[in-house]
Amino acid sequence: MADGGPDLPAGVRQATPEDVPDVLRLIRALADYEREPDAVETTEDDLRRWVFGDDPVASVLVAESGDGAVVGMALWFRTYSTWTGVPGIYLEDLYVDPASRGSGLGKALLTALARIAMDRGYRRVEWAVLDWNTPSIEFYEALGARPMEEWTTYRLSGHALAELGA
Amino acid sequence: MADGGPDLPAGVRQATPEDVPDVLRLIRALADYEREPDAVETTEDDLRRWVFGDDPVASVLVAESGDGAVVGMALWFRTYSTWTGVPGIYLEDLYVDPASRGSGLGKALLTALARIAMDRGYRRVEWAVLDWNTPSIEFYEALGARPMEEWTTYRLSGHALAELGA
Repeated sequence: MADGGPDLPAGVRQATPEDVPDVLRLIRALADYEREPDAVETTEDDLRRWVFGDDPVASVLVAESGDGAVVGMALWFRTYSTWTGVPGIYLEDLYVDPASRGSGLGKALLTALARIAMDRGYRRVEWAVLDWNTPSIEFYEALGARPMEEWTTYRLSGHALAELGA
Repeated sequence: MADGGPDLPAGVRQATPEDVPDVLRLIRALADYEREPDAVETTEDDLRRWVFGDDPVASVLVAESGDGAVVGMALWFRTYSTWTGVPGIYLEDLYVDPASRGSGLGKALLTALARIAMDRGYRRVEWAVLDWNTPSIEFYEALGARPMEEWTTYRLSGHALAELGA
């Protein structure tokens, strides 16, 4: 993941290793909101390795409140489309603390990803939303995002993955 | 993407730059099957850059028939789960030429991905399927894959992406 890149919206910056505790706090808060409070097995070491290590997979943007506290984050990784021929951005997690909502930081984080995509010639920003999460769906549709309703994601994990991969 | 890794099933190997024309042929054949024959804008140069270049995003496995012809492929990239804390594998395209189906090459390609995942400590292999593609859905479910039915993928692209990223 190269440095540099486009100007980011006010309140949004690239995360540094020092942000890892805040990022993990926000990951847990999102899981809680998604009604899966015990789902997060990720550790600070995992984030240091996979975001800031020698073989990074993911990138993180953080959003700050007026006093410089980290109150939001967007964790993303690159995809590849065999139709467009170029990478895309997959937004794995987007979260803003409840106390900081309504101040535009969620939109600023998505705007930052759109700027990164445009700057690099990527042609898609994608993410998944839980079907009951109406406030988020309305927010995404207002930005012009569209649901890929024809497609269902399948997952191989746990015992089935171990068995096929044995 | 490191070299090495697990033994792959018979008939499956890592793609090389020499396979690019075959891989693009199979990408186009898959788009045709998906009823989007004109959707593929990808060029051979795109594949050389994003699979074999300095900043690769995607990896490709190819499947060979008994005479060594490339008759199938799996193109994938790494994801990151903030729940598991480790990367996963996203299978963007899986395709086997119709004349070579029924010989187990599709399962061999998925088995290869499961082995790569297990070898690296990754915990998920995921992909998307069109809702009308019953033969594929039955094949995936027989392998133990499960649909993520609660989630819908949203995409920001085209004019809406350009507008937000401007």
